[in-house]
Amino acid sequence: MSDVIPVPDQPADRGADDADLRAGTVDLLGAIAYGALTAFERLAQDGAGAPTLADKVTLATMAGRQVDHLERVRDRLAELGADLMGAMEPFHRAFDDFHAHTRPKDWLEGLMWVYVGSGFADDFYAEVAVHVDPETRALVDEVLSDAGHDDFVVEHVRAGIEADPRVAGRLALWGRRLAGEALSQAQRVAVDRVGLTRLLMGAEGVDVVAVNKSLSRLVEKHAARLRRLGLQP
Amino acid sequence: MSDVIPVPDQPADRGADDADLRAGTVDLLGAIAYGALTAFERLAQDGAGAPTLADKVTLATMAGRQVDHLERVRDRLAELGADLMGAMEPFHRAFDDFHAHTRPKDWLEGLMWVYVGSGFADDFYAEVAVHVDPETRALVDEVLSDAGHDDFVVEHVRAGIEADPRVAGRLALWGRRLAGEALSQAQRVAVDRVGLTRLLMGAEGVDVVAVNKSLSRLVEKHAARLRRLGLQP
Repeated sequence: MSDVIPVPDQPADRGADDADLRAGTVDLLGAIAYGALTAFERLAQDGAGAPTLADKVTLATMAGRQVDHLERVRDRLAELGADLMGAMEPFHRAFDDFHAHTRPKDWLEGLMWVYVGSGFADDFYAEVAVHVDPETRALVDEVLSDAGHDDFVVEHVRAGIEADPRVAGRLALWGRRLAGEALSQAQRVAVDRVGLTRLLMGAEGVDVVAVNKSLSRLVEKHAARLRRLGLQP
Repeated sequence: MSDVIPVPDQPADRGADDADLRAGTVDLLGAIAYGALTAFERLAQDGAGAPTLADKVTLATMAGRQVDHLERVRDRLAELGADLMGAMEPFHRAFDDFHAHTRPKDWLEGLMWVYVGSGFADDFYAEVAVHVDPETRALVDEVLSDAGHDDFVVEHVRAGIEADPRVAGRLALWGRRLAGEALSQAQRVAVDRVGLTRLLMGAEGVDVVAVNKSLSRLVEKHAARLRRLGLQP
């Protein structure tokens, strides 16, 4: 994809672009870090209510993976001369609001929160990460492919629906609510954080078509996740 | 210390000792694993009530380290042909009771819970691990030296006492209660788990002097931890 980013001829322009790119990269890493912290807290809370000890251990390992991501992103931020706390700060509100507006009522809703919420966030990061430097890109790719909980969630939610088919309707609604809230928080972030939005759009300025294509991909991938759970998107 | 373990001359005796040693090793790893899971849950809960985001991140990384220990112990158990769930099972009651009987009332008590409780448990493991096979010993040594939260706790508790000297008395009492509860759970485990107790005593059978020496070391190390916090043991 790097060939679609025009390289400016003027050193002055290039300087500005580099600053944008750096700001966007720090934003991306800050969002991933705060998202990981949020997911860690959710998973730890879900684990406390897990039906079996084996589930508890699985949730703990999932939570531990989020901490691992947080630490690796913190190290990358340090390499870029940026501070973890500062980088996370612009994303408190979006993630905290998402957290506050989507409180799982039971174990299955909790699992879906992680799968649907983190899945959506990961897809968003992947859209943005196309344009960052190769080292950051490699880190983001690795972190996104390492969540390792999809199969566990799919298996448990499908088993839950099989055991009691009436929950399917409620969980489908829950999935839509999670996606709606995630989209609205993603939009807020896109409006607030120019650096991140520039990354999402490449260096060509506001490209409504490109942004819409990104959003369509996010929605399509969300629908695929719900279908995998056996739910109507 | 290996020269203090007498090696039996008879193959039959050696066979019995190997079985004891294996049972004790699996017990030790099971206790460490369940202790790590318990500490993970405590740290995650404490993190949710941390006064600053930086503290929250530190608590999350501490919790993540416990998950890492859990996973490495699980892998070692698998190498020994033992199952994580089965190995943890004998220790549910001791750890769950310790958990239930020692609920921190605030952030400082939570930090002390981790420092005093995990410190005590780690010292107990170290006493036992002297007699296990070198690979397990190396893993236990590494896990015990890797908790990485002592300085953080000491700094915060000392600052808390400096800010309000009246808390020192309450925290000292809390430290004594934690140690009392830990000792009583350790005694329960020692009585219930013959394999583990044999490890603690070497292969010479019940040696009250050796066990008492172990207990004295545990108590002395606990007192040193409290003194480091600026508290009367």
